[in-house]
Amino acid sequence: MNSAVFPSRLIQGYRAFRKDRLPLEERRYRVLAEAGQRPQIMLVACCDSRAAPETIFDAAPGEMFVVRNVANLVPPHDPDGEFHGTSAAIEYGVMALRVRHIVVMGHGRCGGVSAYLSTKAGQAPLPGGDYIGRWISLLKPAEALACDDPAAEADRQRALEFASIRQAITNLKSFPKIAALEEIGEVELHGAWFDISAGDLWVLDQATGRFEVAAP
Amino acid sequence: MNSAVFPSRLIQGYRAFRKDRLPLEERRYRVLAEAGQRPQIMLVACCDSRAAPETIFDAAPGEMFVVRNVANLVPPHDPDGEFHGTSAAIEYGVMALRVRHIVVMGHGRCGGVSAYLSTKAGQAPLPGGDYIGRWISLLKPAEALACDDPAAEADRQRALEFASIRQAITNLKSFPKIAALEEIGEVELHGAWFDISAGDLWVLDQATGRFEVAAP
Amino acid sequence: MNSAVFPSRLIQGYRAFRKDRLPLEERRYRVLAEAGQRPQIMLVACCDSRAAPETIFDAAPGEMFVVRNVANLVPPHDPDGEFHGTSAAIEYGVMALRVRHIVVMGHGRCGGVSAYLSTKAGQAPLPGGDYIGRWISLLKPAEALACDDPAAEADRQRALEFASIRQAITNLKSFPKIAALEEIGEVELHGAWFDISAGDLWVLDQATGRFEVAAP
Amino acid sequence: MNSAVFPSRLIQGYRAFRKDRLPLEERRYRVLAEAGQRPQIMLVACCDSRAAPETIFDAAPGEMFVVRNVANLVPPHDPDGEFHGTSAAIEYGVMALRVRHIVVMGHGRCGGVSAYLSTKAGQAPLPGGDYIGRWISLLKPAEALACDDPAAEADRQRALEFASIRQAITNLKSFPKIAALEEIGEVELHGAWFDISAGDLWVLDQATGRFEVAAP
Repeated sequence: MNSAVFPSRLIQGYRAFRKDRLPLEERRYRVLAEAGQRPQIMLVACCDSRAAPETIFDAAPGEMFVVRNVANLVPPHDPDGEFHGTSAAIEYGVMALRVRHIVVMGHGRCGGVSAYLSTKAGQAPLPGGDYIGRWISLLKPAEALACDDPAAEADRQRALEFASIRQAITNLKSFPKIAALEEIGEVELHGAWFDISAGDLWVLDQATGRFEVAAP
Repeated sequence: MNSAVFPSRLIQGYRAFRKDRLPLEERRYRVLAEAGQRPQIMLVACCDSRAAPETIFDAAPGEMFVVRNVANLVPPHDPDGEFHGTSAAIEYGVMALRVRHIVVMGHGRCGGVSAYLSTKAGQAPLPGGDYIGRWISLLKPAEALACDDPAAEADRQRALEFASIRQAITNLKSFPKIAALEEIGEVELHGAWFDISAGDLWVLDQATGRFEVAAP
Repeated sequence: MNSAVFPSRLIQGYRAFRKDRLPLEERRYRVLAEAGQRPQIMLVACCDSRAAPETIFDAAPGEMFVVRNVANLVPPHDPDGEFHGTSAAIEYGVMALRVRHIVVMGHGRCGGVSAYLSTKAGQAPLPGGDYIGRWISLLKPAEALACDDPAAEADRQRALEFASIRQAITNLKSFPKIAALEEIGEVELHGAWFDISAGDLWVLDQATGRFEVAAP
Repeated sequence: MNSAVFPSRLIQGYRAFRKDRLPLEERRYRVLAEAGQRPQIMLVACCDSRAAPETIFDAAPGEMFVVRNVANLVPPHDPDGEFHGTSAAIEYGVMALRVRHIVVMGHGRCGGVSAYLSTKAGQAPLPGGDYIGRWISLLKPAEALACDDPAAEADRQRALEFASIRQAITNLKSFPKIAALEEIGEVELHGAWFDISAGDLWVLDQATGRFEVAAP
């Protein structure tokens, strides 16, 4: 092992947390350590540094169970296959923690979506990469859906970001337990998209299939 | 599609973000939307609702690229195999975003680690689960390491949480590009563990292999 | 063992359930059998045949976790002592099922409360009884509270029914885990009282300590 | 006291009750409020949200006196000892209300029975729990009976659920007054088990000791 020095930015941030935030949340941390976490909401979000769900939703410790991967993808149900990390997290959220809501949150200018669109133009998604190309190939089924969004068709990237969220919700429903729980109203599936430039939240209206800006 | 109502808790949190946080970060969001994200730090963290890295490290938008899965696991390099989501995120962080630091952050009372320990007692990790059992089987190699931690041997769960972070760092080094970049000092690998009860951060001293509490 | 014939009233009721109700709830039963129950609400109610919570709140299968004892009493926290059945149920609801709400629901003309008041007049609560007297002695601390309710003081029985619900909420808070979870907003405690004559629901306003009729 | 808002789900359910059910039962509620309840049947049932006796037996107000605890347990007669809540309810049902039938109703996939079986594998029934472990220790005497059920021996959980109902009936007979009343045919004891997946009712044939599906 080496002797890498722990990033001073993180130590400094941790000190700010200790000074400003922990005093407000000390009880929550202590109680939820003893009692176990009991979040009612699960987020499937992107790794992007500009789209942290706890920040955007002002979450207290214990409120949101969050899985994050590149481009906030949900693979289809495939218990014998690959891509298990996200599926395992979803399963844990729904079955062990009994969350009531699963929110798939995308965001603008997503690097994963952009890399996928590059491959359509004949480019490698990441030169020399071993994983990212296969991972973002999960975006493929969303492409067809992207064409259907008239509001967004002028902006190909955004159209695919929207479509991918719809596809993720479809894929969530391919998990038999989630489909069954959603059918009886015990689990609700939602879509959202964060505009990292303006700081606006868009919410998927599932009746119309459209994303609409939430009133701030 | 149904007409599930977007969780009011999230709308309310978003409004707090708009009122209190966005005004402070508006420039960051806008500039980093245009220029693209340029985080120097990548976090591999757990989905647990009590261990959000942005909160613990008081991160501003754009500072941390964060992948989160159950038990903050890093699979070993296996370009032909399974578990691609986390590997794709790591690859994207290192190769596309050029992060300098990768921090694996575990935490106390981890449900994934606890489920793994239950399986040792002959139990199913999650009755009827399709994914979680296979995912946490990635903890297996860490078990041997767990025995080596004298400070922690009294507490089997914590010993495995610590060992799993060490194992994740070992697995990061099994990615040839990361090993090469680490060797020349361009990438640094770190381990941390958050005590969700006390709010303490423990940092892995890689010279000794021990975790030590960071001075608050 | 004897050969008692199963009550025909129950067989007949079961047939009505099969014919009229099960077809509507078949999916809920099947799904919640597979996935496990995930109620968000726990009721502490009376055994009284006229105050069934599922009827009064029109509950679907899986919605309410319900403990029922004589006079809907909650013993104070006493892990080394007696009266464990109700405490065990509360513990299971809060810790294993992670319910968010605990509602103590009393009702008018409660036989348990009435028996307690008889003992004040020098009567035995139940001639020759072994248990009921000790059980309803748990009402004693509520007596002081009963005096404080001017709206109800004209009706001694109702005053004690109301007071007993307040006392039950106080006793719930004597469970350290419930007090801690309530403090951080993860568990909410409520009081209600059902008027078995008029069919009205009264809800405890905890700001004023008064019960108010809910708008039908 | 805080100002928790009464759960809107319950208000909404109460409104449905007022609109759809109360008009049908108004007379029953009013008459039984004046005259007192006179149920002929007492149920000892589980708190489980999927096994509400009023639903399964389509009961009208006033028909069933219902005690509910975790795993529908009946402690043995022990007038000087603990576990008084359930015994007090049984005493009240038999002595004050003069019920004719006592039905112990278990159900499939019972969390209490399952927790007991976990303790056999060396696990805590509920980590950090104060009460549930002691409460479900009442299942211990039923274990021996479980082995005797050839029909069910393939399914350890169901075998114990069945055996526990038989044991509860045995324990009811340990109450001297119940034994005496049963002997002269004034009280009848019954066992039933509800299959929460299929919605089937199984009835204990006390001549053979076997549970048989009731014709729907």
